[in-house]
Amino acid sequence: MGYAEHFSLANIPYGIASGGGHAKPAPATRLEDNIFFLADLDLQIDPEIKQTFSQPTLNALAALPKSKLRELRTTIQTALRDPATVSTHGIPADQVRTHLPVVARGFTDFSCSTEHLQNASEAMTGARSLPPAALHYPIGYGGRASSVVVSGTPIVRPLGQYYSPDKGHGEGIGFGPSQAMDYELEMAAIIGRPSRLGEPVAIGDADEHIFGVVLLNDWSARDLQKFEMTPLGPLNGKSFGTTISPWVVTLEALEAFACEPPPKEVEVKSYLRDEKARSTYDVELEVEVVRGGTATRVCTARQRWMYWTFRDLVAQQTVNGCNIETGDLLGTGTVSGIGEGHYGCLMEYKKADGVAPKLEGGEELVWLQDGDEVSFSGYAGPGVGFGECVGVLKPNLA
Amino acid sequence: MGYAEHFSLANIPYGIASGGGHAKPAPATRLEDNIFFLADLDLQIDPEIKQTFSQPTLNALAALPKSKLRELRTTIQTALRDPATVSTHGIPADQVRTHLPVVARGFTDFSCSTEHLQNASEAMTGARSLPPAALHYPIGYGGRASSVVVSGTPIVRPLGQYYSPDKGHGEGIGFGPSQAMDYELEMAAIIGRPSRLGEPVAIGDADEHIFGVVLLNDWSARDLQKFEMTPLGPLNGKSFGTTISPWVVTLEALEAFACEPPPKEVEVKSYLRDEKARSTYDVELEVEVVRGGTATRVCTARQRWMYWTFRDLVAQQTVNGCNIETGDLLGTGTVSGIGEGHYGCLMEYKKADGVAPKLEGGEELVWLQDGDEVSFSGYAGPGVGFGECVGVLKPNLA
Repeated sequence: MGYAEHFSLANIPYGIASGGGHAKPAPATRLEDNIFFLADLDLQIDPEIKQTFSQPTLNALAALPKSKLRELRTTIQTALRDPATVSTHGIPADQVRTHLPVVARGFTDFSCSTEHLQNASEAMTGARSLPPAALHYPIGYGGRASSVVVSGTPIVRPLGQYYSPDKGHGEGIGFGPSQAMDYELEMAAIIGRPSRLGEPVAIGDADEHIFGVVLLNDWSARDLQKFEMTPLGPLNGKSFGTTISPWVVTLEALEAFACEPPPKEVEVKSYLRDEKARSTYDVELEVEVVRGGTATRVCTARQRWMYWTFRDLVAQQTVNGCNIETGDLLGTGTVSGIGEGHYGCLMEYKKADGVAPKLEGGEELVWLQDGDEVSFSGYAGPGVGFGECVGVLKPNLA
Repeated sequence: MGYAEHFSLANIPYGIASGGGHAKPAPATRLEDNIFFLADLDLQIDPEIKQTFSQPTLNALAALPKSKLRELRTTIQTALRDPATVSTHGIPADQVRTHLPVVARGFTDFSCSTEHLQNASEAMTGARSLPPAALHYPIGYGGRASSVVVSGTPIVRPLGQYYSPDKGHGEGIGFGPSQAMDYELEMAAIIGRPSRLGEPVAIGDADEHIFGVVLLNDWSARDLQKFEMTPLGPLNGKSFGTTISPWVVTLEALEAFACEPPPKEVEVKSYLRDEKARSTYDVELEVEVVRGGTATRVCTARQRWMYWTFRDLVAQQTVNGCNIETGDLLGTGTVSGIGEGHYGCLMEYKKADGVAPKLEGGEELVWLQDGDEVSFSGYAGPGVGFGECVGVLKPNLA
């Protein structure tokens, strides 16, 4: 399993697990290499909190007011400081199976990294430019919630139509399994407290609505996406599958790693003016690709590099009156930095001067091949991390 | 109420209603001007069907296999042929309230009308062209399910950022209530039987997955949309609210009005080749705008004009392995025809040669004003229609 150092008492993430004597998926937390089902811990706590422990998803727990979630967090920390509790109720992580932590109805994928936007623009169009609105607010699109899966679930290479590589654009359109499979290194906020239709959430209240954060792999079929996305944006190039990490790291755990985002290059409108200076988090992200049994680290990036914060995403999603719901995912889009080795997806290397990453075996990583495993990890600092978000690309057998 | 002629024994639509002695929203049907709660009808029918009658949404009923839905339909028709049943259980439509018929998790809005695409392109860019993929498959984007509301729910003018009309593009960006409010005349298929992730639905099986059809108003803030949609497509310009009609008209009721769609101009790939010739329906659609108490019919259009069918939408949504779920909405995008009077949204009139519709009072309908009521209706033919899909635009008081 590994990642024990991500899950200290300073973390206390939430997930849904089964196994180790628990046939039904239920809320759990993780301490080092052990899983604890919340219902096992016999916590002396508000019954309103306790009744969320028997649900098959974290939605009810996530919807609790932050005051109750803070009470839960400190009560769990106290319980797990007792070695007897740990030895009685701890189940080795490799003996349980993790499930989707929340049922998301809404999934909006934003574009928070201006580096990614510029690299992608250069790769797609040859010109290094930003979309018109990109510095005014986080742009985004409606993702597909039905195909969000938990880490470890295989992803099948999708079928679709694309510009035939044998012919010029528009001359021939091919159909078959995507020939340009990519990952996108992302993070996502998971909404806890919902908002009402017609009532924007003030940026200062955003944290009250964010339950926690997960890693997210926005698997992308670049050839399908390229053909479809003018003018309505991505759809089938993305909707075949999205992977999230199993452990939701709360804002309370991340607060110790709060830091300032990059300065705004353009003055933002009032609803995006954030009084909180340390409005993002310093999380180190990493992408590893395993081909033929050999792992290669192909990217490192940091959450703090992103131009827009989770707080900005909540404000932007709701400013028009759109309501957010418990379990909703607000994705950051690809996290990228300056220079190769910090590109959060393979498409960015397709710039004129791009050089594809080299795998350990010496092979160039142009696009993903069937059987490739893509693994993300995220680490905020001593004792607080996200573990991993993993998926293997499977061939399309249709 | 009106629309009694839409709801004959040949229709038997499904909806969710409350009132008339039923405090809790529950499944109902409508015959002429009367509503019948399904649980009241004491139908002699499979208990698996019957247990869906006590649910607060139609999702469980919609998920039944088509064989059972056909059984239900004929059983209801038989029951409602008995005048005693009608007089005992009928509740005047104006004494009940209708609610959202289904809970949708997924909402994809496609673009099925090539007329709309060309008019919109001309209005937005000056050039009358089609998006690259538009004749190869129905293009679409991920809509927002959380803000889908039932007919009669007011819609609040959204806040957002737009190109400031006082200045050139890029020179000034404004923020405030949208200044370019529009409707979009649409229909939507509601998914009944779900599909599995990774398993495309063959076009020949599509009808087995479509529970029925509703009218849909994809309210649009054109200024917000114009600024945001390059390159990721529409988001805040749409996600503030979408209205659907309360009565789901089943494919079984529409079958009598099945007809051929326009011929394909470009050969389609295998997965979109439909053996069913009469693969669309001949439904007459109408848009009425009420301003200052006076109604003006501003558009008529026909479902059969659309290039892509509901069957195509199911095939396209799932070809990449994306799963569909019970309650999902697959919208057609704006239904438009050739020539003014057949434009399904106001944006299309913004073409160089466009002339805005005239309201009965003589005023030009440029964009919607606060207080305007927009009402859609749809009529397939003798005894089968959709009733109406209505909403009033309210001012933004923020």
